[in-house]
Amino acid sequence: MAGNSFGTLFRFTTWGESHGPAIGAVVDGVPPRIPLDEADIQPWMDKRKPGQSRFVTQRREADEVKILSGVYEGQTTGTPISLLIENTDQRSKDYSDIAAKFRPGHADYTYWKKYGIRDPRGGGRSSARETACRVAAGAVARKILAGVTVRGALVQIGPHAIDRGRWDWDEVDRNPFFCPDAETASRWEEYLDGVRKAGSSTGAIVEVVAEGVPAGWGDPIYDKLDSDLARAMMTINAVKGVEIGAGFGAAALSGEENADEMLMGNDGTVRFTANHAGGILGGISTGQPVVVRFAVKPTSSILTPRRTVDIEGHNTEILTKGRHDPCVGIRAVPVGEAMMACVLADHLLRQRAIEPWD
Amino acid sequence: MAGNSFGTLFRFTTWGESHGPAIGAVVDGVPPRIPLDEADIQPWMDKRKPGQSRFVTQRREADEVKILSGVYEGQTTGTPISLLIENTDQRSKDYSDIAAKFRPGHADYTYWKKYGIRDPRGGGRSSARETACRVAAGAVARKILAGVTVRGALVQIGPHAIDRGRWDWDEVDRNPFFCPDAETASRWEEYLDGVRKAGSSTGAIVEVVAEGVPAGWGDPIYDKLDSDLARAMMTINAVKGVEIGAGFGAAALSGEENADEMLMGNDGTVRFTANHAGGILGGISTGQPVVVRFAVKPTSSILTPRRTVDIEGHNTEILTKGRHDPCVGIRAVPVGEAMMACVLADHLLRQRAIEPWD
Amino acid sequence: MAGNSFGTLFRFTTWGESHGPAIGAVVDGVPPRIPLDEADIQPWMDKRKPGQSRFVTQRREADEVKILSGVYEGQTTGTPISLLIENTDQRSKDYSDIAAKFRPGHADYTYWKKYGIRDPRGGGRSSARETACRVAAGAVARKILAGVTVRGALVQIGPHAIDRGRWDWDEVDRNPFFCPDAETASRWEEYLDGVRKAGSSTGAIVEVVAEGVPAGWGDPIYDKLDSDLARAMMTINAVKGVEIGAGFGAAALSGEENADEMLMGNDGTVRFTANHAGGILGGISTGQPVVVRFAVKPTSSILTPRRTVDIEGHNTEILTKGRHDPCVGIRAVPVGEAMMACVLADHLLRQRAIEPWD
Amino acid sequence: MAGNSFGTLFRFTTWGESHGPAIGAVVDGVPPRIPLDEADIQPWMDKRKPGQSRFVTQRREADEVKILSGVYEGQTTGTPISLLIENTDQRSKDYSDIAAKFRPGHADYTYWKKYGIRDPRGGGRSSARETACRVAAGAVARKILAGVTVRGALVQIGPHAIDRGRWDWDEVDRNPFFCPDAETASRWEEYLDGVRKAGSSTGAIVEVVAEGVPAGWGDPIYDKLDSDLARAMMTINAVKGVEIGAGFGAAALSGEENADEMLMGNDGTVRFTANHAGGILGGISTGQPVVVRFAVKPTSSILTPRRTVDIEGHNTEILTKGRHDPCVGIRAVPVGEAMMACVLADHLLRQRAIEPWD
Repeated sequence: MAGNSFGTLFRFTTWGESHGPAIGAVVDGVPPRIPLDEADIQPWMDKRKPGQSRFVTQRREADEVKILSGVYEGQTTGTPISLLIENTDQRSKDYSDIAAKFRPGHADYTYWKKYGIRDPRGGGRSSARETACRVAAGAVARKILAGVTVRGALVQIGPHAIDRGRWDWDEVDRNPFFCPDAETASRWEEYLDGVRKAGSSTGAIVEVVAEGVPAGWGDPIYDKLDSDLARAMMTINAVKGVEIGAGFGAAALSGEENADEMLMGNDGTVRFTANHAGGILGGISTGQPVVVRFAVKPTSSILTPRRTVDIEGHNTEILTKGRHDPCVGIRAVPVGEAMMACVLADHLLRQRAIEPWD
Repeated sequence: MAGNSFGTLFRFTTWGESHGPAIGAVVDGVPPRIPLDEADIQPWMDKRKPGQSRFVTQRREADEVKILSGVYEGQTTGTPISLLIENTDQRSKDYSDIAAKFRPGHADYTYWKKYGIRDPRGGGRSSARETACRVAAGAVARKILAGVTVRGALVQIGPHAIDRGRWDWDEVDRNPFFCPDAETASRWEEYLDGVRKAGSSTGAIVEVVAEGVPAGWGDPIYDKLDSDLARAMMTINAVKGVEIGAGFGAAALSGEENADEMLMGNDGTVRFTANHAGGILGGISTGQPVVVRFAVKPTSSILTPRRTVDIEGHNTEILTKGRHDPCVGIRAVPVGEAMMACVLADHLLRQRAIEPWD
Repeated sequence: MAGNSFGTLFRFTTWGESHGPAIGAVVDGVPPRIPLDEADIQPWMDKRKPGQSRFVTQRREADEVKILSGVYEGQTTGTPISLLIENTDQRSKDYSDIAAKFRPGHADYTYWKKYGIRDPRGGGRSSARETACRVAAGAVARKILAGVTVRGALVQIGPHAIDRGRWDWDEVDRNPFFCPDAETASRWEEYLDGVRKAGSSTGAIVEVVAEGVPAGWGDPIYDKLDSDLARAMMTINAVKGVEIGAGFGAAALSGEENADEMLMGNDGTVRFTANHAGGILGGISTGQPVVVRFAVKPTSSILTPRRTVDIEGHNTEILTKGRHDPCVGIRAVPVGEAMMACVLADHLLRQRAIEPWD
Repeated sequence: MAGNSFGTLFRFTTWGESHGPAIGAVVDGVPPRIPLDEADIQPWMDKRKPGQSRFVTQRREADEVKILSGVYEGQTTGTPISLLIENTDQRSKDYSDIAAKFRPGHADYTYWKKYGIRDPRGGGRSSARETACRVAAGAVARKILAGVTVRGALVQIGPHAIDRGRWDWDEVDRNPFFCPDAETASRWEEYLDGVRKAGSSTGAIVEVVAEGVPAGWGDPIYDKLDSDLARAMMTINAVKGVEIGAGFGAAALSGEENADEMLMGNDGTVRFTANHAGGILGGISTGQPVVVRFAVKPTSSILTPRRTVDIEGHNTEILTKGRHDPCVGIRAVPVGEAMMACVLADHLLRQRAIEPWD
């Protein structure tokens, strides 16, 4: 059934296949009179754009966003905003191998079982190309989130995690990995060159942090801020795990260790001695930074042949040539940021609907 | 805004506070002519019920479910099923301490900031007592899922994980931890006794597995089977992380290691050489077991005083006496099972709506 | 599928059958800190209650509402409000005739075709008894709508319409028909006595008016204020038509006649020379009274035998004895008011979510 | 908030302004493997297209639909179908008068009050141009509705109703009014020429009939087939009333007159002696034709000056020149058909989700 929309009050719907004429998003629920033009969106698109380093797919896409509706004289009007991105590099190539065989780790087999038909060109709808639409929607969400900063970083590639003591947000934009730790970035460069040359791939972990979120966002019980974030991140291609704050690490802690004690600051605001909660308690924001991490599996497209079956039901092998990301986790950083922004924008509007009590 | 419902076609809404007269769920979208009576639900309630061992809260609740609607002569009628559970052990006690101070790690502060009012008796709506309603809804979901087995187990308490090589589903019901590994269960007993006597608490990891799910369930892009599961598990009290299949471990793997190769079996069905995917590719079930794990933080209510602030804005301390679970992860097992069942029932109905192609 | 909920931000879900143990509603999305207790709801229940005159069903129901959740110390907490109404007069009677035959004009046949099972006792879920839940939900909605007055009246019974020139709101509560025109009420009394004694029934038209709704409520294109009202009224049992403002009469008008011209008042507010629009333009409220009318068909339960078929597929006849309303339109008045209040409460909250521009 | 989507399982979202670069719809939830190309959609677009006779607006639009996604090799794939229609006749004209003054009967004032900004060019989002998107979505819906025929006709213009005894569906396509009665069509021609020459306008009534709908579609209580239809038709621009079957006329009937008696036919199917119910009982289809009528108000744009206020708050006058329909009811016929088709497609899919009982 219909499943291509995300959000309730701030709601976007995406459409489009990897090798169709275009992809796009319709963003509905944006409040009126917010300044918006294509230049607000493009920088985020560029951050996710393929072909920016040797560590990501060499597909070349301009990823230029056109606003087709919902904006009048540079301001939103409250009507739906249609965003269109043309596919310019649908390289004419032979997809007969992918069409006939199911690539392990991809959605080929499951789409086939579900729908009985699939567009094999570049993965069709299941391609990560769809995430460009989310980045565009996320750029609109950011315009609503005055005072909130949403930033992401890559914190692990393969077995190599960053040193959190060296975390520097400024470093994130200085290396091709969105890595906040310069030393680790160097190490990753060497590691990933090896992976890339071997035609292999590797997994990664992304962390997204939102600062400036006030206490009180999130709707218990089933529309919690954290459950919406978990859903949001798990919709991103290749993501296999999501955690908030201390996350899986919390399982090994005692109640004493995990407690984020509270102190009244001199400025009359509450501060916490730690943030194991990742900024969320009972599904509602605490006022601390909202911290989400998600794990991205290694790209399934590799040059080593893997055993599989074809659509006729015969055993066979497949190896996936083409322009693939050796570590899809890298380009997942701006996508994770966009999803965080969209979830927050939705909960900002939801919170407005219940009258502030003070 | 309204946030107390879960699911689309199989949809339940819960209501009720920990110390109100009753709690309940309305389950809507259940197909007609399914045999159902209270005896189908009660065993699952009993599994979650407090007071069953010294390792869980000593609150005494009968947790008897009454069906108030939607069933006629032992069969569902297609109309909403109202399930009611009376609160029988609302021990009359003094809540003035909790009412005046925010317990760290609980939702006291965030409910206060969001709503400007909260029911302090036993945590009110934010109490894990609400999960009894989910277990009741999950029992109804199971009735729809003919051929599907949903089972959960505790796989880690504090730093102590099970030995997966000793996994035995039959063992799960033989120890008070839902532990599938008898040896580890013994170790946990000792460990948890120490935690309990110290007035401390510990975290845990739960694993839920669904077998018999056919290929083809799940709606890309934003209503994926795994994103719905991630949301579902993250709505459970105290959960801080969710993963599918290899989960966070996938981040450290190479594409070759992570590949679940496919082979055509002699019986004409596809089998996989591994299940790193946790039974889901592209958001759609593969036909393999669906495997979800989630991390539960340590109970925030401990006997060691923690610093906090009161509602007047003064620094203070609080220690939480009362009948608490030293490891809430234990009783989260049947809740995780229930949420898995509800997600699957929803996607079963969703899949029916798009005509099967064969 | 699930279809027993109404509204988005102010959202209620009803459950229960005519002759089950109870019926109820869960109202979700109510803002916190609104004073609410059972005494706020009961008067509206009493208005709809059966057995209040000889012109309505003689079923005797106390229709006492219990609040089971969502209220703490007399104020809403932002959590779902569970409202329960016990069925006290499920008269033990023989339903075998109704169980075996489909009553023309009732939902017997369609429920049977849809579900393959139905609760025949008093119509089960399709009974107008369900509307008691709506009235309870509507009473909660009214608490949110400060400054808005929602009132209904019966404007036609059978072929006898009121004289609108004699409209007096105070008269509505003085006769058993909610008729705003005393003279017509007298005529109806005589007319309905004839209908009642003949074991017949008659249709009616209800008008509901909301005053005090500010300009700006309603969400184009598909969640318009008027389309939500049309849906709302059409969900009421036996309703066959809904119109806004001039309604069907507008079809016969010219553009000049139908124009509601606008003038700037001395007080700086816009006023209109007429209200053919019924207070809504482009799906958004104008600030004028919101005016809705709906047509209620005659009660299908009559004493004259009608031809029908039985569940075995044979031709037969049925006549419906029992305690029926000769004109269900009368008791539809408070139900229509309740639905108007719920739609307005939803749109009030929706409007809050988009930041007011001034 | 977000309000530009319609339907649940068959769900479409529209976007675009009258004078923006394009308008469009994203249709989500379409089952896979349904043959679909642009030629399936275009004939319905042409039926609604402006400029086809002197009785409708002379705006010239090709209204060519492009399918941008969701179709592969001539078949739907189960992914969202993006439909795009370029605006080719955004005549460069002076909108300063409309921008400065609120046209009575239009949405100018309410959009302004709601959003604080509006696109005045041709009415922006509130223009009936948006209905082209619905017709495109409706054409997709028809492809799902095998065996169901959805047809509309104009049954009244101004005070002149058709003679239902002369109803001939073949006649509908032979006159510029979609009138099923040739004699009345001639009378309308004369009448409307007068209206047009006077720069005036007139209202109308449209009837849409669906044949071949099986018994059992529709979800009580709040997603009834008739309440969904009422909502659907009331979302169409200028519609002020909706009725099902006997509709408002039922108010004047007795229970005996209104009864649709049931007889078992020789072929083993139930037939009804009449169809006052309009094919729907208890919100569920009976198997009879589904009959909906809706009233369209006269076009608000007329050449006679009307009093209004400007955005500065001064009294003024406005007369609306331009290319307007003297009777917008005419072009509402294909729009009403499209909405009926979309509602039915949604309920077809909804019905599939609850397992058929036989």
